[in-house]
Amino acid sequence: MGLIDNANREAFKRLDKSNPELTGIVYAKDVLPEMDKYTIGHAGPPIKWEDMCGPLKGAVLGAIRYEGLCETDVEAGVMVESGKIKFRHNHSVDCVGPMTGMITYSMPLFEVSNLAFGNKAYCSFNEGLGKVMRFGANGPEVIKRLKWIEEELAPAFKKALDRRGPVNLKVLMTKALAMGDEMHQRNTAASSLFVREIAPALAAVTDNKESLVRIMEFITGNDQFFLNLAMAACKSAADAIKNIPYCTIVSAMSRNGTKFGVKVSGLGDAWFEADCLMPKGLYFPGFTAEDGNPDIGDSAICETYGIGGFAMGGAPAVVRFVGAQSAAEAVEFTNDMMEICEGASSQLLMPSMDFQGVPSGIDIRKVVETGLLPVINTGIAHKEAGVGQVGAGIVRAPMDCFTDALAAFAKKVLPEEEQI
Amino acid sequence: MGLIDNANREAFKRLDKSNPELTGIVYAKDVLPEMDKYTIGHAGPPIKWEDMCGPLKGAVLGAIRYEGLCETDVEAGVMVESGKIKFRHNHSVDCVGPMTGMITYSMPLFEVSNLAFGNKAYCSFNEGLGKVMRFGANGPEVIKRLKWIEEELAPAFKKALDRRGPVNLKVLMTKALAMGDEMHQRNTAASSLFVREIAPALAAVTDNKESLVRIMEFITGNDQFFLNLAMAACKSAADAIKNIPYCTIVSAMSRNGTKFGVKVSGLGDAWFEADCLMPKGLYFPGFTAEDGNPDIGDSAICETYGIGGFAMGGAPAVVRFVGAQSAAEAVEFTNDMMEICEGASSQLLMPSMDFQGVPSGIDIRKVVETGLLPVINTGIAHKEAGVGQVGAGIVRAPMDCFTDALAAFAKKVLPEEEQI
Repeated sequence: MGLIDNANREAFKRLDKSNPELTGIVYAKDVLPEMDKYTIGHAGPPIKWEDMCGPLKGAVLGAIRYEGLCETDVEAGVMVESGKIKFRHNHSVDCVGPMTGMITYSMPLFEVSNLAFGNKAYCSFNEGLGKVMRFGANGPEVIKRLKWIEEELAPAFKKALDRRGPVNLKVLMTKALAMGDEMHQRNTAASSLFVREIAPALAAVTDNKESLVRIMEFITGNDQFFLNLAMAACKSAADAIKNIPYCTIVSAMSRNGTKFGVKVSGLGDAWFEADCLMPKGLYFPGFTAEDGNPDIGDSAICETYGIGGFAMGGAPAVVRFVGAQSAAEAVEFTNDMMEICEGASSQLLMPSMDFQGVPSGIDIRKVVETGLLPVINTGIAHKEAGVGQVGAGIVRAPMDCFTDALAAFAKKVLPEEEQI
Repeated sequence: MGLIDNANREAFKRLDKSNPELTGIVYAKDVLPEMDKYTIGHAGPPIKWEDMCGPLKGAVLGAIRYEGLCETDVEAGVMVESGKIKFRHNHSVDCVGPMTGMITYSMPLFEVSNLAFGNKAYCSFNEGLGKVMRFGANGPEVIKRLKWIEEELAPAFKKALDRRGPVNLKVLMTKALAMGDEMHQRNTAASSLFVREIAPALAAVTDNKESLVRIMEFITGNDQFFLNLAMAACKSAADAIKNIPYCTIVSAMSRNGTKFGVKVSGLGDAWFEADCLMPKGLYFPGFTAEDGNPDIGDSAICETYGIGGFAMGGAPAVVRFVGAQSAAEAVEFTNDMMEICEGASSQLLMPSMDFQGVPSGIDIRKVVETGLLPVINTGIAHKEAGVGQVGAGIVRAPMDCFTDALAAFAKKVLPEEEQI
């Protein structure tokens, strides 16, 4: 085998061996480098304010108010325009966040440790559905909910986790996949299983009954609660394959709503970017494709690892939600993704596909060779600031990211004899 | 269409329209007719003590001690031999119970109402796995757990249900089927979803924190907790098709560990019986088929309605647990059952089979005609009293039940011109 094949095999092995565990509840201010109230983490590759899409701008304005820096969107906008706000992309500090992906100073984060390699990854708490900051909504109820998460939910989770010990996410994800979750647009099983893991401990550590009821109602009332845990788990696995020389496996995919970015293991921290595509899917009543924003969020880390759209064959119940036609079509998506991946997971098995493992480790060479683009299951945000979610669907990663990355790879990394 | 076809169509419609809801937590002594401490309900068709299998005898002796009538199995045996204990089968009083199916005076029951037809059905609480009374175990820890269920768990459930209102089981079952439960040997999803329904209310009504933690640990620690709710739901649906003239649809299947009994809608309360078969399946470490008791339990009410073995095609994750070979084989089981059923459920859909409904309404004519016997997913009890569960597998209903029923039907119900 050549240097590339060896490197890719190694990357696949690391993805497969990764063992993410929820080890802590922390605050951004306590764990992230150079964090202050004026620093805002966002989804996707780096982006300037003037290039941000509507929902990302809406979320940023809300995030500034959430941190108590001002009272109104207008004031917040002035702060941004005057350069007081420092933007950085989440991936640069071991973080991921769904959709707009806001991570600010006061926010609590899930800390997920990859037991196999010792690295950590962080993700925000899931806020629920509808009008939420990750979809660009920023009204008073959005800020209030985020404050409640910070001040009541997260402290209770921290105490509960201290009591029961870490929650192994690979085990939960394996079970949830066998229950029809692909863990991007469908987390019903994983969220339910997680409730079972944490509920007894929450009951044990929460003295105030009204508080416990609020917490129980929140975590039992949200089928997507687990998404953010899945994302941190996938990030912790994907980070384990960073910087393997000669490796053509994708180590990150992410979108800021304007640009789709791809990182490749053997190409270090460079993002290969192209315009985000529009998801094709189903819109909530009252909305159409006209209202939708292009693809956005760090959540494509799910597909980077091998779940989400890649695992659709094991999650036939999701197909109608994301606008696919049939269980057979879902299987086709997964079979296609198998063609662009280095291997099939040895543990994340899909019973409905006769216990085949999910495709894992996207090889940019295979993407370019086959023309099969990574398929991503995603939520759809309204294109204007402040509205929220308007649908869900399927989107592809743009081809230019892969051809550009492959060209860069051929030019910068390959010795003459391996050039393709 | 003939009288039979019309009657069978009506039976299917009733099964399909049935809408079971958990409406109450009650005690056997308060709701069952002619109930006293000396009356013991058991699974299957009626049976005498001398004909009972080992696990059923073990459960009976334990049940007598649970009711405080004596201290030892020997004393309990003397009470039985001297005729002090009255046995009756659960189906005779709108009840079902898994495996040995013990229902005694002090036991709490789930009350499930079929909203479409107004009838009610009852089932005991699930005790957990391993050494439990339903599998014939009867040691002190078994009795202690049952007392705890009676004195702490059930009262909390009652208060919680009063607070939140009824839990619609058809909705939960529909969701759980889409998550790979067939709801007989696999209830992981349904149990998890049920926890989410009840946990906030339990937190709200339970003042004692230690009590709440015990309750949360119990209900979150048992993947099969929902089984008993599924059984009551199926019983409430099956009872809605009793006594339809000219109807050849099965209204009950049940086993007492010695005899398998089948009831047919148009044949009233008669049981058509044959010897129970041995399940084929997988045994827990240390046990073999030598240790297994023949098929036992009221839980075949699941298959009577159309879930369990009939829904295996929608529950590929169960196949390895019950000893089937592949997801394709699971689909085959479901397709076979479609051939002996009157219709496919319009609501209980299987995403992995392209949203096909589960087969529902077993027609004894089709069973005899095709030779395809109803397939049942089942737990396996040790054949000796006092041991407990030793495995899980797949079993068939015996053909004689159906040929005998069909003969009786032809003889007693049919006018000359409809005879077959």
